[in-house]
Amino acid sequence: MSKLITVSQAAGELKAADKILILAHHYPDGDTLGSGFGLCRALRAIGKTARVECSDKIPDKYRFMFENMEQAADFEPEFICAVDVADTLLLGDKLSVYADRVELCIDHHCSNTRYARKLVLNPEYAATAMIVAEIIRELGVEFDRDIAACIYTGIATDTGCFKYSNTSSYAMRMAADMLDCGINSEMINRTMFDMKSKARIELERMALDSMRFFLGDRCAVMVITNEMIEKSGAGEDDLEGLAPIPRQIEGVYVGVTMREKQDGTFRVSVRTDNHADASAICSLLGGGGHVRAAGCTISGPQDRAVEAILEAVRSVIC
Amino acid sequence: MSKLITVSQAAGELKAADKILILAHHYPDGDTLGSGFGLCRALRAIGKTARVECSDKIPDKYRFMFENMEQAADFEPEFICAVDVADTLLLGDKLSVYADRVELCIDHHCSNTRYARKLVLNPEYAATAMIVAEIIRELGVEFDRDIAACIYTGIATDTGCFKYSNTSSYAMRMAADMLDCGINSEMINRTMFDMKSKARIELERMALDSMRFFLGDRCAVMVITNEMIEKSGAGEDDLEGLAPIPRQIEGVYVGVTMREKQDGTFRVSVRTDNHADASAICSLLGGGGHVRAAGCTISGPQDRAVEAILEAVRSVIC
Repeated sequence: MSKLITVSQAAGELKAADKILILAHHYPDGDTLGSGFGLCRALRAIGKTARVECSDKIPDKYRFMFENMEQAADFEPEFICAVDVADTLLLGDKLSVYADRVELCIDHHCSNTRYARKLVLNPEYAATAMIVAEIIRELGVEFDRDIAACIYTGIATDTGCFKYSNTSSYAMRMAADMLDCGINSEMINRTMFDMKSKARIELERMALDSMRFFLGDRCAVMVITNEMIEKSGAGEDDLEGLAPIPRQIEGVYVGVTMREKQDGTFRVSVRTDNHADASAICSLLGGGGHVRAAGCTISGPQDRAVEAILEAVRSVIC
Repeated sequence: MSKLITVSQAAGELKAADKILILAHHYPDGDTLGSGFGLCRALRAIGKTARVECSDKIPDKYRFMFENMEQAADFEPEFICAVDVADTLLLGDKLSVYADRVELCIDHHCSNTRYARKLVLNPEYAATAMIVAEIIRELGVEFDRDIAACIYTGIATDTGCFKYSNTSSYAMRMAADMLDCGINSEMINRTMFDMKSKARIELERMALDSMRFFLGDRCAVMVITNEMIEKSGAGEDDLEGLAPIPRQIEGVYVGVTMREKQDGTFRVSVRTDNHADASAICSLLGGGGHVRAAGCTISGPQDRAVEAILEAVRSVIC
């Protein structure tokens, strides 16, 4: 069970440490990477040796976060800090060796399993990057353009570019502070939200084809199979950002996106509007997350998996 | 030629006036309507008689701006104020009778033709609603939730929900202030940016099916035929916002969306990135527009129309 600590205590821990390994979650997104690289850059600015690791390959669109950063010489970590990682399972295969050694976790998921020795948790914040920004301030590091771009990306991606209900005025003001550091927010937003590969467009077409409606059209389910992924030529990068699509349809309370995995199980993303609690739905199936966005894993075959998620949805919205 | 005045002078003009008619531009968008209804509500709060008019029917998605507002009894306007209207031509048919009588124009377009007697112009601002918000402050009116929702909508729609390069930190902080008034930004953003009908999703799927790539994949062409529109059941509202899709594909310099009209001609929308001038392409075919977004009309049949646009694209990007 983690000891809950404050932002300023977390900064103190980091100041006292060195050879800091920062862990991002697998299937990395803008928040875990923005938090990780933002923190890493700030730690280096105060003379620490630090690097970021992730079990999965980091998608090209996040390259700007680290491409002008020196590679840290390989070092044996003395202090391990996880960012935006709610559960050790989310460390993924490669990083699972560190599961029992996480000294500090910085996170905004209320579902955090408190696996780290110390935990800074703020479920009120839209993004872990917001907590990291506060820690960076406490470290006394001035935000340069690179740090600001990392923090901005974390906030922008986790709020759907300031679109979702988790966007507080504080989140917007913090993003405004980052703009004042001279970042190219248009480039970041175009890369994060608007750029699609040909394979992605093809996959999107097939995914839209698969869309089915249930519970009086209040629930829409979209399935992405291995066959679709193969046929479209989509890579890991192309699979991101599909989850919101079903919920964007008029009248849909619960949007479900199911992605078939190599082992035949389905990784399920649930998005809801204010009529339903996504986290309640997913927790019925052993998953978790936020009120409007949550996830779980269900075993196949596809029809049984759809059945299972529909049953959970039904029990929550009816 | 307009006299340029300050925000506080504009507030003075409005304070001194009564029976104020506020004009929005035709094909109304979130900024002209948010500016108009925000200002109208503020003027009413200080006891003025005021109403907003627009030549075109106001789309349903903007209803929230005025549905809980009392209809102003019909009055003969004594003071006419245009918001976000760069040119009297943009008043549209119905409001063109007022073209020579506009006392005050509030606008952010540098292309403003200075037709009003007095003009508050700030081309640095992403939205006219930002100038209106400053005027409302000068009027001494406290922002309630309704006024804030109008101003927020103006800023959000003209910045693509804070995505475009015109998004200043000041714009974000002003939007943050509006959030603090307790608006439901998620509802607004969902309505403005994310809501799609089932027919729209179906049409999008068919449109993606039609996508073809040319000129070494630097040009993508998507065609929307009358048959697709009919089959999907899409209405006029559902056709909005399809034009950007082809250009969002990685590596595509020129994205072309062609929409078949009832008479068999094609209305062509061209979107470009910084490699090509959309307006140059369209002007070769008798159309025009901006550097990144332009349009023209080409006669059918479809194959010949695609040929024609490709020839124009080729001559500009090669």
